[in-house]
Amino acid sequence: MDFACNGKFLRVNLSDGTLESEPVDEALWRRFGGGWGLVGYFLLRETAPGIDPLGPRNPLIFATGVLTGCRIPGSGRHSVGAKSPLTGGFGTAEAGGYWGVELKRTGFDGVIIEGQSSDPVYLYIHDGEAELRDASDLWGKTTGEAHEFLLSALGKQVRTALIGQAGENLVPYASIIHDLGHVAGRTGLGAVMGSKRLKAICVQGAKGISIADTDEIKKISQWLVQNLEPLCGWRRDLGTSALVLAYDALGGLPTRNFREGSFEEAEEISGEKLRDEYLVGRKSCYGCPIRCKRVVSIRDRYTVDPMYGGPEYETIVALGANCGINDLQAVAKANELCAAYGLDTISTGVTVAWAMECAEQGLLPEAEAEGLCFGNKDAMLEIIPRIAKREGLGYLLSKGAYRAAGLIGSGAEHYAMHVKGQELPMHEPRLKRAMGLGYIASPTGADHNHNAHDNAYVAPGRFLDMATTLGIQGPIPLESLETEKLRALHYQTLWMTAYNCIGICFFLPYSYEQIQRAVKGATGWETSTWELMKIGERAFNMGQAFNVIQGLDPDLDVLPKRFFEPLEGGILHGAAIDSDIFGKALGEYYELIGWDPITHIPSMGKLRELGLDWVINLLPT
Amino acid sequence: MDFACNGKFLRVNLSDGTLESEPVDEALWRRFGGGWGLVGYFLLRETAPGIDPLGPRNPLIFATGVLTGCRIPGSGRHSVGAKSPLTGGFGTAEAGGYWGVELKRTGFDGVIIEGQSSDPVYLYIHDGEAELRDASDLWGKTTGEAHEFLLSALGKQVRTALIGQAGENLVPYASIIHDLGHVAGRTGLGAVMGSKRLKAICVQGAKGISIADTDEIKKISQWLVQNLEPLCGWRRDLGTSALVLAYDALGGLPTRNFREGSFEEAEEISGEKLRDEYLVGRKSCYGCPIRCKRVVSIRDRYTVDPMYGGPEYETIVALGANCGINDLQAVAKANELCAAYGLDTISTGVTVAWAMECAEQGLLPEAEAEGLCFGNKDAMLEIIPRIAKREGLGYLLSKGAYRAAGLIGSGAEHYAMHVKGQELPMHEPRLKRAMGLGYIASPTGADHNHNAHDNAYVAPGRFLDMATTLGIQGPIPLESLETEKLRALHYQTLWMTAYNCIGICFFLPYSYEQIQRAVKGATGWETSTWELMKIGERAFNMGQAFNVIQGLDPDLDVLPKRFFEPLEGGILHGAAIDSDIFGKALGEYYELIGWDPITHIPSMGKLRELGLDWVINLLPT
Repeated sequence: MDFACNGKFLRVNLSDGTLESEPVDEALWRRFGGGWGLVGYFLLRETAPGIDPLGPRNPLIFATGVLTGCRIPGSGRHSVGAKSPLTGGFGTAEAGGYWGVELKRTGFDGVIIEGQSSDPVYLYIHDGEAELRDASDLWGKTTGEAHEFLLSALGKQVRTALIGQAGENLVPYASIIHDLGHVAGRTGLGAVMGSKRLKAICVQGAKGISIADTDEIKKISQWLVQNLEPLCGWRRDLGTSALVLAYDALGGLPTRNFREGSFEEAEEISGEKLRDEYLVGRKSCYGCPIRCKRVVSIRDRYTVDPMYGGPEYETIVALGANCGINDLQAVAKANELCAAYGLDTISTGVTVAWAMECAEQGLLPEAEAEGLCFGNKDAMLEIIPRIAKREGLGYLLSKGAYRAAGLIGSGAEHYAMHVKGQELPMHEPRLKRAMGLGYIASPTGADHNHNAHDNAYVAPGRFLDMATTLGIQGPIPLESLETEKLRALHYQTLWMTAYNCIGICFFLPYSYEQIQRAVKGATGWETSTWELMKIGERAFNMGQAFNVIQGLDPDLDVLPKRFFEPLEGGILHGAAIDSDIFGKALGEYYELIGWDPITHIPSMGKLRELGLDWVINLLPT
Repeated sequence: MDFACNGKFLRVNLSDGTLESEPVDEALWRRFGGGWGLVGYFLLRETAPGIDPLGPRNPLIFATGVLTGCRIPGSGRHSVGAKSPLTGGFGTAEAGGYWGVELKRTGFDGVIIEGQSSDPVYLYIHDGEAELRDASDLWGKTTGEAHEFLLSALGKQVRTALIGQAGENLVPYASIIHDLGHVAGRTGLGAVMGSKRLKAICVQGAKGISIADTDEIKKISQWLVQNLEPLCGWRRDLGTSALVLAYDALGGLPTRNFREGSFEEAEEISGEKLRDEYLVGRKSCYGCPIRCKRVVSIRDRYTVDPMYGGPEYETIVALGANCGINDLQAVAKANELCAAYGLDTISTGVTVAWAMECAEQGLLPEAEAEGLCFGNKDAMLEIIPRIAKREGLGYLLSKGAYRAAGLIGSGAEHYAMHVKGQELPMHEPRLKRAMGLGYIASPTGADHNHNAHDNAYVAPGRFLDMATTLGIQGPIPLESLETEKLRALHYQTLWMTAYNCIGICFFLPYSYEQIQRAVKGATGWETSTWELMKIGERAFNMGQAFNVIQGLDPDLDVLPKRFFEPLEGGILHGAAIDSDIFGKALGEYYELIGWDPITHIPSMGKLRELGLDWVINLLPT
């Protein structure tokens, strides 16, 4: 095929060691865009209700999108997906970097891993060939050790997707680490990989990715380069860590397990301090001149290896302010440990913070708390490897905040900051109320990768302009949960989900028109914002349909009670979500997106409108 | 304001003679686009349930769109709307020409006529001023006579919107004739105008229409001019009448009251014959180089005045093949009479054909049939003025086919080709099955101005390409009522309805992107296909919400039984719609568009998604 994709996936059965090439035709690409969309397609077709997420019948899917590797900045992304061991429902996570592009260069657009190997293996895909190799020596190794071994064995050009001990030990929020610095972090896909005894997927290819219109692609790239400084200067300079002080100033910096909205020592963990004191470099993703990713090196109170890059906003806050920790060195070390052991930093930080608050509240006996309390950085650093190894208190915490709280009971659930079992990212719902609705409605549980930021709509600027282009009429007050805010949330969700299908980074300041031109440039398709939004909507609905089929309890589609209680500290001190207003808005939102407000099942009309009539037959009757 | 609109409507109360300027701010234009959208907005806000369409409480609304007069070819359109006396529900019709542009040049973007005058009047709007003038001398005059009088009184530059005797006499399918050749034909708006004793609205202005980006507009216009011949040559050459032989060949040329799908003498009423024998010129709309409208002059068996232009496809078939009439001279004469008396040619032809078939079936006694039978052209020509004057059999026929059938009973309903009381246009549902669904779901009843043509999707070409750009995957078999066809119908409906809002002609071969650029060029708005499609969807849902509020019976949302019986003649001989398949598809279609499949009420979720939460409060509880 000649439309930016190879038109085939590699299907690997680890139970019997077979490897096959499977066609994925242009019609499927056009309907699903790739990434999340194709993950959803394969999961819905191939996954029976009630399967064990950590059993052989759960396929682990790596999928690029039509834009992956299309040579415009931001096109280095791919998706990973499976039934999530964390939520029991739709699991997907995206990663940037180079791995997805390199996979495409091998001649495959994606990989579907089925079954379960009896012994540890790794998969090596190179130049249209694929083979399984013994990984016994790599089992138990950190991701860094395994990565170095694989590069020395296969050559320095190889790209790796790896799990650490967390994945091997089936921690349900284990991540998949690509080239050590690009993480598919959420929904516990590392554990799915671990359950298959697959340590790594290494890719290396030399095949070109065919582009329908290289001039068009060049134009977009040039535009970005020319506008880099005014539009992306701050991202270049500070990366996502710029948000630490920004959200502290807005009163929405999750602090001490979301109890507070401002951290008195935010300066100490700020992006500015990170840049000024520890930054030794900036990592890029494929083709991106922004280079927003941090590389830090520390040899002081803690030793932090630059091999793993450095912490981003979510990580700094989850393992910093949210644990009451004010030492950026410790935060960077925690980030390194999570990368080395293959743990999602958000879920790790929120689960540790839960334990800290439980200890403070006397719900976790001092003798068992292993020193965890808000601000105790060394206790935090010690517990991370123990979570990955499931030792001592680490065993309890390896369950994630929601399940751990269920185990100890006595009100500990009150302190578990999760939706559907997945821990909240670092966006405070009392600041961002529509995002709170988005957490609930997301097929993956609390997730910020396809969600709306209420603060984006309060004043003129790029995000409000983007919303206006879709017909939203703003500005919309920060606290509003009126119709216009719900529409903004809906449309933003669809667009971000589309990004997660086609394989483009949301940090790039492209307009809808530019993305449309990029898709045309890559594929030759005459497309439209409408078609792309519908790709996002289709993927989003497929995720939820999967949840319904897997029997997820709609009663778990709630926000933790904490957010209906007054926030402490900062300029939003005392702010609480009104549960009546929120509940009404949630019901309206479900109706607005075409899902039943009680069961949360996508309507047959919505599924048909998206061309998903075949999914209707899969739903429980 | 400075965005292609003046930002104000003229509001005229004919009961007390007051005239006021009313602001219509940019947010309203952006949400509704103008045209149908603003008609819907004002009707929903200002019309109580159950009002008499022919009483003083029914506002008659003329509304331009944001593109009206924006200098690109096709931008000469505007909408007229009111509660329809024909359907009792949402009434709207569009007209091309120059009138809407001239209205904008007076400084007003639209006119709302309220109340009822005790004596005939006409409204004269010129250069920001407006006045009501006595029209006693014009009452009872043909549109041609009135037009000439007004031009001699007000100057040759004035543009007129006029009713004939049909409107004066409240025939529920009376039309509004603009400059004699551009007709807002459907849903009986001429009768609403007549009920107000408003003979005409004359407009003349000198105000420029401000354009945000004239270069962009020029580019689009130049593109059209450069591509005129390959893309629009046939339209230039034959106008819509090119379709006569095309649909005859496809077996879907409505013949003898839709009994047959092919007319043995189609050549005799073809567009080619019209061009070769009677064409003396081609009329244009504002700024359009295609000039698709026919001007015919005949002095032979019949005398046809070129003042009224000439018949288009719908007219030729409604008054020709569908009445079994094979004489193009007679058809052109009938067209002239309908224009002179202000009758919708489609409803007139279908109602006359109904009477012809009733006569044939013995349901209309010969003594009362006034000679009407298939093929009797003189009887047809004689009955047209009598319909307008409501004399003799004309009184019965002036009710329209549906109500007339109800009056004579005895199975005459079987021959009334209507949906919601509005007569079918010349598109055979046994050929175009999705259009059959579209007739039913349309807020205006059987209407082709916002509907899908099944034949457009069966093979590669511009229309399938357009659908593909929105994410439809074709080709789609002609007879299919599967999901993909329903999606195509839905998307096509939204796009065409958007055209009827923003004021652009569907005959121009613009892409989505060009329309998006045209809207930006005219208004300065950074818009998207998404926003424009949603403008269409909003308008469509407002139309249906109006129907619900006015108490329209959903049981009338059915296709005449004839279409479930075998078609006679032509290549589709024997074809019938399977009522089970059709019924299932209809239910699925209602769900797909977000309406209840039983009550046909738009869901609250759909209304909120469109930002129409305020409409929810208007719906009956």
